Amino acid sequence: MRRRSYGQECPLARSLDILGERWTFLIVHALLDGEARFSELSLKLPGIPSNLLSTRLKSLEEAGLVRRVPYSTHPPRARYGLTDAGKALRPVLDALGMWGQQYGMRIRQERVRAAVRSERRPRRVGATAEPLTA
Amino acid sequence: MRRRSYGQECPLARSLDILGERWTFLIVHALLDGEARFSELSLKLPGIPSNLLSTRLKSLEEAGLVRRVPYSTHPPRARYGLTDAGKALRPVLDALGMWGQQYGMRIRQERVRAAVRSERRPRRVGATAEPLTA
Repeated sequence: MRRRSYGQECPLARSLDILGERWTFLIVHALLDGEARFSELSLKLPGIPSNLLSTRLKSLEEAGLVRRVPYSTHPPRARYGLTDAGKALRPVLDALGMWGQQYGMRIRQERVRAAVRSERRPRRVGATAEPLTA
Repeated sequence: MRRRSYGQECPLARSLDILGERWTFLIVHALLDGEARFSELSLKLPGIPSNLLSTRLKSLEEAGLVRRVPYSTHPPRARYGLTDAGKALRPVLDALGMWGQQYGMRIRQERVRAAVRSERRPRRVGATAEPLTA
């Protein structure tokens, strides 16, 4: 399993070493309501590929944010739930949701406008790379 | 520029459509102290490739979270600062930092332990894929 680290020691970077991967916040959010089976999680997260959900759950389990609770051995079946560390993310997700409520729609519109502008404008070579403007 | 969306209408997913890309939170965090030039941001974010910082800044600018303030035209130079929407992310970053302070180090240790365990254990085929356990 791919493990990436920002290699920084600040608490924010440490948080994002585990939470910064796509879908991770949404998986934790889906589990805040309580334990769920893999199929239930898939339904709560339309659009996530099965193998990615599986990888993220494994990764969250290894990090100690999610625990896997087996409830049948033949066939092997399990529920997934949050540990205390996982549940402690609620204030983060609440703050993110509040920000999304206030700014999310406006930001989506800005991006659509920017996309339309860049369609109209002939593309300069290197127009998106700006290291030279430092 | 690649634009990915979770395609969900909840405010959290809307937030993550823009913030969910790697490095985005750390770039916003680096700008919370005030405007910075590209080279200053690079120094504050050791490890980020120049072209990725450039892409993220462009994307944040298009989303209306970052504004680019030119201060010289020959050669073209600019500072980057947060808009009100960007500054409004402070509570999110504070909450993430607090979570990292409380759980970040423990989580890093868990992951190291998990890595050691999986080194010891012979790998079963499909051991990381669990869609069948639903």
